[in-house]
Amino acid sequence: MNGHPIRIAELAERLGGRPVEGDPDFRVHGVGSLEAGGPADLGFLRSAKFAGALDETRIGALIAPPELDVGGRPVIRSPMPDLDFARAAALIVPTPRPAPGVHPSAFVDPTAKADPEASIGAQVSVGARSEIGPRTVLHPNVTLCDDVRVGADCLLHPGVVVREGCAIGDRVILQPGVSIGGDGFGYEFNERGEHEKVPQLGNVVLEDDVEIGANSTVDRARLGTTRIERGVKIDNLVQVGHNCVIGAHSAIVAQSGLGGSTRLGNRVFMMAQSGSAGQLTIGEGSFVAGRAGVSKDVPPGSRVWGFPAVPEHRWHRSTVLVRRLPELLSRLRALERHLGLDPERRRTRDE
Amino acid sequence: MNGHPIRIAELAERLGGRPVEGDPDFRVHGVGSLEAGGPADLGFLRSAKFAGALDETRIGALIAPPELDVGGRPVIRSPMPDLDFARAAALIVPTPRPAPGVHPSAFVDPTAKADPEASIGAQVSVGARSEIGPRTVLHPNVTLCDDVRVGADCLLHPGVVVREGCAIGDRVILQPGVSIGGDGFGYEFNERGEHEKVPQLGNVVLEDDVEIGANSTVDRARLGTTRIERGVKIDNLVQVGHNCVIGAHSAIVAQSGLGGSTRLGNRVFMMAQSGSAGQLTIGEGSFVAGRAGVSKDVPPGSRVWGFPAVPEHRWHRSTVLVRRLPELLSRLRALERHLGLDPERRRTRDE
Amino acid sequence: MNGHPIRIAELAERLGGRPVEGDPDFRVHGVGSLEAGGPADLGFLRSAKFAGALDETRIGALIAPPELDVGGRPVIRSPMPDLDFARAAALIVPTPRPAPGVHPSAFVDPTAKADPEASIGAQVSVGARSEIGPRTVLHPNVTLCDDVRVGADCLLHPGVVVREGCAIGDRVILQPGVSIGGDGFGYEFNERGEHEKVPQLGNVVLEDDVEIGANSTVDRARLGTTRIERGVKIDNLVQVGHNCVIGAHSAIVAQSGLGGSTRLGNRVFMMAQSGSAGQLTIGEGSFVAGRAGVSKDVPPGSRVWGFPAVPEHRWHRSTVLVRRLPELLSRLRALERHLGLDPERRRTRDE
Repeated sequence: MNGHPIRIAELAERLGGRPVEGDPDFRVHGVGSLEAGGPADLGFLRSAKFAGALDETRIGALIAPPELDVGGRPVIRSPMPDLDFARAAALIVPTPRPAPGVHPSAFVDPTAKADPEASIGAQVSVGARSEIGPRTVLHPNVTLCDDVRVGADCLLHPGVVVREGCAIGDRVILQPGVSIGGDGFGYEFNERGEHEKVPQLGNVVLEDDVEIGANSTVDRARLGTTRIERGVKIDNLVQVGHNCVIGAHSAIVAQSGLGGSTRLGNRVFMMAQSGSAGQLTIGEGSFVAGRAGVSKDVPPGSRVWGFPAVPEHRWHRSTVLVRRLPELLSRLRALERHLGLDPERRRTRDE
Repeated sequence: MNGHPIRIAELAERLGGRPVEGDPDFRVHGVGSLEAGGPADLGFLRSAKFAGALDETRIGALIAPPELDVGGRPVIRSPMPDLDFARAAALIVPTPRPAPGVHPSAFVDPTAKADPEASIGAQVSVGARSEIGPRTVLHPNVTLCDDVRVGADCLLHPGVVVREGCAIGDRVILQPGVSIGGDGFGYEFNERGEHEKVPQLGNVVLEDDVEIGANSTVDRARLGTTRIERGVKIDNLVQVGHNCVIGAHSAIVAQSGLGGSTRLGNRVFMMAQSGSAGQLTIGEGSFVAGRAGVSKDVPPGSRVWGFPAVPEHRWHRSTVLVRRLPELLSRLRALERHLGLDPERRRTRDE
Repeated sequence: MNGHPIRIAELAERLGGRPVEGDPDFRVHGVGSLEAGGPADLGFLRSAKFAGALDETRIGALIAPPELDVGGRPVIRSPMPDLDFARAAALIVPTPRPAPGVHPSAFVDPTAKADPEASIGAQVSVGARSEIGPRTVLHPNVTLCDDVRVGADCLLHPGVVVREGCAIGDRVILQPGVSIGGDGFGYEFNERGEHEKVPQLGNVVLEDDVEIGANSTVDRARLGTTRIERGVKIDNLVQVGHNCVIGAHSAIVAQSGLGGSTRLGNRVFMMAQSGSAGQLTIGEGSFVAGRAGVSKDVPPGSRVWGFPAVPEHRWHRSTVLVRRLPELLSRLRALERHLGLDPERRRTRDE
């Protein structure tokens, strides 16, 4: 992945003044993995555990923990090689930004206000009274409905929809096809026993530094606000129901779902394909395992697994014992035979 | 949430003539929850169970069950406060409707027919011979392919796609990014053992009063029709396979999926993240619990849980007993010790 | 489903010279199911097992296995009636193709190259330096970002997004709303304990004959390529994480998900709502059952079920025994009573 060539000493400086070993004038042209990177690329080594990969790699330079032998290559020493590599990659291969301005094929309602430094791409539609902050990019085919506010330095990828009245902070990234502010799933049974729609009059607020993955959906509140707090990261195809509140710096991995009015504390982790019923609270710092289904409140700092979700050690115990059920059954049979009891002979069929 | 101010007595009249207590000339300016609503807002109280919230609320007026003490506020008395509040909200805060007509940036094929009262938004594309009924709104970036029919009073939110030949009734609501009429997942293995596509020649019919949530997908039939009957409500990120038939007034909550050719009777309820294999029938009035996976036909009026889905009481029994497995194992061990048997000592490893 | 009328003898010829019985000049006007097809339609009969349906059908002609009695109707004899019917349907009811050329409402960057035989639909946006092969169709509201390559004879349905730098082979079909090349879900914790984005610098490659279902998402690689090999078929609402490799001719059914860097061998089958954690390998020819969750490597040729996924026979055994737990408990109690032990009397509560 080629980018802007940069001297490794300058790169180390921009990473906060990390020490460099080897040729400080080595020019890094791109970044790469140890498997595929080339002699002009920068790679990284997380820890001594991965050092075996150095035998085969063609990588030219590295970010690596202090004192780890990197075979004489130019190296930036860092206590956090992963993080520094991420930052280096952003410097070496910066995201190209489209030019500011409104594309001729875009439609921006005359009452909307787009900062002159914002980029409004092809086929975009921006509704009445909406506001778009500086350096924000609306990629092609994005739709902002009426009265939407988007802050500064946001990236809205193609096909994103933000419905009326929703508000987005600064540095928010929405991957393709994200839906913000669709109606919550709310009906009352009427006199004829049919579903009658409950108006969904609230909105969605995405605070600063939120990122949401492709084709995920965040529903507007029935009344009030569905709120995704600062720094929350959400993966693809996740469902966030109406009136949820997701605490700051939480992360929700792909295909998980939250029922209406569920609240996550700060720094909650929900792994892939997990879920929570509505109206629940998942306490700060909790971890919800992949495919777990939360059916009652989870205290702060919990680790829950399975469906219905239970504390991790209980789930592991049960799972192991379920696998041992054939053995348990034969031990039970042995006892029965030992005592001259044999209930299974009286059964006509083993179900 | 502010809307059209309305006298509470007039509102009660429009709700079918409900009785009013307190000042009949009190003007309601908006609607709100008990937690967040203000002195000009209308709220509601479902039952005496929630009456504690009245101590703290700033809400100005209420819809409440008969005889419940509401602290002297103007109140509309109703046996169905939830439903009447939903209806009141629709009256006080009506959904703004874009003006009728075709936006200059939209493309409508010359052979298509849009009712003059319909609204065709920015960046919309309407294919050949498609028809759009009166007062229907196509929001920006909607795509109707060729030969699509959409009835009256429908709302198609941004990014919705309706593929060729599909038909949509009246008062249908499609949230952002819904896909109607994508090809069903159908292949045959050919002579080389590779998947060969089976043409998906049927269509999708959505009957009157259907609503479908954001980024959900309804596949067209292989031959014939995938049919979603009158009044069905589907939440976000739901998958409906080719040739399914979903009976009237059923509801399917988020992230659930139906395999091809599955039939739901009327008024079936599928909770979130549930699913059904293809070719099955789920009988009228059945309830499929959250995360349940249906793997064989379900008789009418059933309640099923778990995977593979079983009747509710069996699932609860099994779930409780799985949690008790550690206890069952120690009781088994106690018996073995009592009888001088100890199979575990002969095991080399507890797997 | 009406199409191009064709003589049954000519149709048999085009299916590779299959034998015809009955009137060779019978003209087939369309295709239909045995239930709904009419006297001018062609249907098919998979095997003798389905022959009962012939009593009721109005179908005019058939594709059927050799020697099966079809009641004197014109019939094409085939050892693979399903496959030949699929091919016949494609001949009789061909997919209508929009005219070549660029729709006036589309935007194609001046540096992009679209083959003159390609069709670029209404409201499409094609980014800088992108290339579109002959006979490829971009339906309305498709977005190709910069530096995208799309081969020949592809169909990109409305609302599809292909982000920058991704490459698509020949005869690829993307159903509505598919997202190709969204950022992978990658963050490092920084000094403040907050998620810091890892640049996602790789791309996605879809090889020839891939098909992907509506609103599915395939993430770009962190470095390198997320690769979906030749002939892979993916259903709706499926998530493919960054850096995955899906082996040729695999199939993944709806709402399944793959964590980052997971590798599937060739001809793997993942049924609906299944999943795999990241960094795993699922060996060639394996079968992952519906709702199964793979949590460790799966050897080639395996069949795995459940969560955590285990070999099929173990899962079935455990599932049956879980259902028999109430019986096991009563047998345990009977033994305890027999021996004068009664642990349950000492328990205050049955948990």
